[in-house]
Amino acid sequence: MTEELQKGLEGVLVAESELSEIDGDEGRLIYRGYGIEDLAKHASYEEVIYLLWYGELPDAEELDSFTDSMVAERSVAEDILDTVGQLAAADENPMAALRTAVSMLSAFDPDADEPATDEDATLRKGRRITAKIPTILAAFARMRDGDDPVAPREDLSHAANFLYMLNDEEPDDVLAETFDTALVLHADHGLNASTFSAMVTASTLSDLHSAVTSAIGTLKGPLHGGANQDVMQMLKEADDSDRDPIGWVENALEEGRRVSGFGHRVYTVKDPRAEILGERSQELGEAAGTSKWYEYSTKIEEYMLEEKGLAPNVDFYSASTYYQMGIPIDIYTPIFAMSRSAGWIAHAAEYVEDNRLIRPRARYTGPEDQQFVDVDER
Amino acid sequence: MTEELQKGLEGVLVAESELSEIDGDEGRLIYRGYGIEDLAKHASYEEVIYLLWYGELPDAEELDSFTDSMVAERSVAEDILDTVGQLAAADENPMAALRTAVSMLSAFDPDADEPATDEDATLRKGRRITAKIPTILAAFARMRDGDDPVAPREDLSHAANFLYMLNDEEPDDVLAETFDTALVLHADHGLNASTFSAMVTASTLSDLHSAVTSAIGTLKGPLHGGANQDVMQMLKEADDSDRDPIGWVENALEEGRRVSGFGHRVYTVKDPRAEILGERSQELGEAAGTSKWYEYSTKIEEYMLEEKGLAPNVDFYSASTYYQMGIPIDIYTPIFAMSRSAGWIAHAAEYVEDNRLIRPRARYTGPEDQQFVDVDER
Repeated sequence: MTEELQKGLEGVLVAESELSEIDGDEGRLIYRGYGIEDLAKHASYEEVIYLLWYGELPDAEELDSFTDSMVAERSVAEDILDTVGQLAAADENPMAALRTAVSMLSAFDPDADEPATDEDATLRKGRRITAKIPTILAAFARMRDGDDPVAPREDLSHAANFLYMLNDEEPDDVLAETFDTALVLHADHGLNASTFSAMVTASTLSDLHSAVTSAIGTLKGPLHGGANQDVMQMLKEADDSDRDPIGWVENALEEGRRVSGFGHRVYTVKDPRAEILGERSQELGEAAGTSKWYEYSTKIEEYMLEEKGLAPNVDFYSASTYYQMGIPIDIYTPIFAMSRSAGWIAHAAEYVEDNRLIRPRARYTGPEDQQFVDVDER
Repeated sequence: MTEELQKGLEGVLVAESELSEIDGDEGRLIYRGYGIEDLAKHASYEEVIYLLWYGELPDAEELDSFTDSMVAERSVAEDILDTVGQLAAADENPMAALRTAVSMLSAFDPDADEPATDEDATLRKGRRITAKIPTILAAFARMRDGDDPVAPREDLSHAANFLYMLNDEEPDDVLAETFDTALVLHADHGLNASTFSAMVTASTLSDLHSAVTSAIGTLKGPLHGGANQDVMQMLKEADDSDRDPIGWVENALEEGRRVSGFGHRVYTVKDPRAEILGERSQELGEAAGTSKWYEYSTKIEEYMLEEKGLAPNVDFYSASTYYQMGIPIDIYTPIFAMSRSAGWIAHAAEYVEDNRLIRPRARYTGPEDQQFVDVDER
C-alpha cells in the first residue's frame, strides 16, 4: 500500500484500454489506432461507434446492418416523453433532464435485468441508449419552447436526424457533415472524469444505464463538459462589450477570471480536435458570409498562446461551431454527452470484461477517540 | 507519473477525509472519532447525519432545529410521484427507480443552480434529498403492489416514518429502533465504490443531485449494495432445500457458488456492523418468537470462519434483520442507499472544499498506426 496522497489521480494508471490513446505532448489522439484526423475526415459517427464497440471498422454490410439496428431504436416510450415534458415545464437544466431521462430508459429496456457480464446484452443496451439520446434531447429542447417533439426519421444519419428533430427541418449537407464531425471528435477521449465515473459505477457490476447516468452527471460539471458553454458565453460577452476580443480577455484576466477553453490535464500542445473544429468553424462562417466568431476565436487563441502559453482545447472551437449552427448554447454540453455515450459504453463494457471493483481509500484526518455524550448533556 | 497499473485502486489514497475511518484489522469503524458501537446504541440517525455534515454532534436545540428542517422536506412533488408510478407500473428495478426519481428531484430544488462550491446550498440540497428518499421509496414499493402512496407524517422519526409510509401502519418501538440502528450503521464507510463515484462526479463541480445519482447507480451493483439481497435469497434457498444450513453451504461451495455476505476489501476480521446487527437480528427473532433466521445465520457464520477463514460483513446480518421486519427483499439495497445518502453527501461536500478534478489514465494496449481504408474497400 502506497502512503502517498494521489489527489485527482493525475497520471495514475487504473486500467488497460484498447480504445483511445492521447499523446498530450504531440497533440495526437487515436481511436483503436486510427488518427482522429482520418476519422473526422472520412468516417461517419456510426462507423466510429462500431469501431469503438466492436474493435474494428465495419465493412459495408456490417455498417448497414448496424446502422439499421440503431435507426430502429430511435423512438422513446411515451412515459419517457411525459417525464421529459414535465422536466421541460419545470425549466430543468438540460444536462439534468438528460440524466433523468436516460436513467428512466432502463424501465423500458428488454435487456435491463441481464447481468453486466453479458457483453452482448450490454452493447444492445448501449445501442438503444445512444440511439435514443438525440430523441430525448431534441424533445426537451422543443418542449421547453412550447413546441411539440418531432418524431425521428429513419432515412437520416444519426447527426442529420438530431438536427432535423431539433429544428423540424432537414439540415443541409454542410450542417449535417459538420455536426457528424463534431460527434466523431467527441466520441472518446481516454479516462476523462465522466468516462472514469462510468467505469467506477460499472465496476460494481451495476447495469449500463447506471454507468451512463453517472457519466452524464459527471460531464455536467463546469470543469468538464460545461466548458464549451462557458466559451460561447465568454465570446458573446466580449462581443457585447465595447472592447475588442483581446482587450476583453486582458480585462477578464486582470479581474482574475478564468478564460474558458484553454489548457487541459493531458495536452501540453494544441488539442488536435480543436484544430479540426477550428477549420469547420471557419467554413461555417464563410458559408454564412460572416466569420466574426471564428475570427474572435483565433485572436483569443493567439493571445492566450503568446501571453499565457496555453493552447485551446476542444471546447474552445466547438463553441463557435455550434453557435453558427443555431444550436441553443445550453444544449452544447448535452451534445457532448450525445457523442461521448459511445466512449462511455465502450469503456464500461471493456472494464467489466476483466473487472475489479474500484475502491480507493482516504487518509483519515479527523479526530480519534471521541467520547460519546448524550444529547441532553452536550 | 507512476507506471504501475493500480487496478481497482486498492489501497490508493485519493483524498483526505475527516468523516470516517475503518481499521480493518481491528474491526473498528468510527464516524468523526465516535465508535460505531456508541453511535448505534445512543445516537439517532438524525444525530449521525448532523455529525457527518456539520462536524460535531448537535446539542438539543441544534438537533430540534435540524430535525424540523428535515421533516419539512419529506413531501415530494406530484410530478415525481407520477414518474415513480410509471416506473412502478413498468416493474422497474427498485434501485433504478430510485436513481431516476432522485435525479428528477433537482428539477424542483430551489438551490439546483447554485454552484457546487456553495457548501451551504449543497447541504440544503443534501437535506432535501435525504428527507425525500424514504418517501420516494415507500411510494414505489406501494404503487407496484397497486396501493396508494402514504403521505409522510411529521411526528415520526426518519426511521419510523419510512416504516409507516411503507406499511401504512405505525411501527412499534422495537421495529423503529432497530431500523434506526440499521440506518446509523450504514450511514458512512470510507471511500466505498458508491461514495467514490459521488466524489468523481462532484470533482467536475457538478451538482449534488448528479453526485448522489451516480452513487445510487454504483451501489446498485451486486458487488456492492446488491449483496444484502443475495444473502437473504441464499438463506431462503437453504431453507427451501432439504439440507441443513451448513449442508446447503457446503453443497453451494462445491458447485462453485459464492456465499454472499462474507469477506470485505477492507476488513480482515468481523465487520463491527455485522456484530451489532447480529444482536438486533437475534432480538427481533426473540420478540417474534422464532429465531430461525438468526440461527441459520450464526451457523453459516461459524462454518465460513472455520472452513474458509472468512468473517461476515454488514450485508450478512442486515438480511435477516430486514426480513424479520417484513421489508420486501428487493428493497434492502434501496434502504442501504437511504442511509448512505448521508455519507455520499458528506464526502461530496468535503471533497469539493479542496477540489481537484479526478481524472486518472489508462495504459493503452490497442493497435498503433492503423491505416484508414474507405468503407467500400474494407
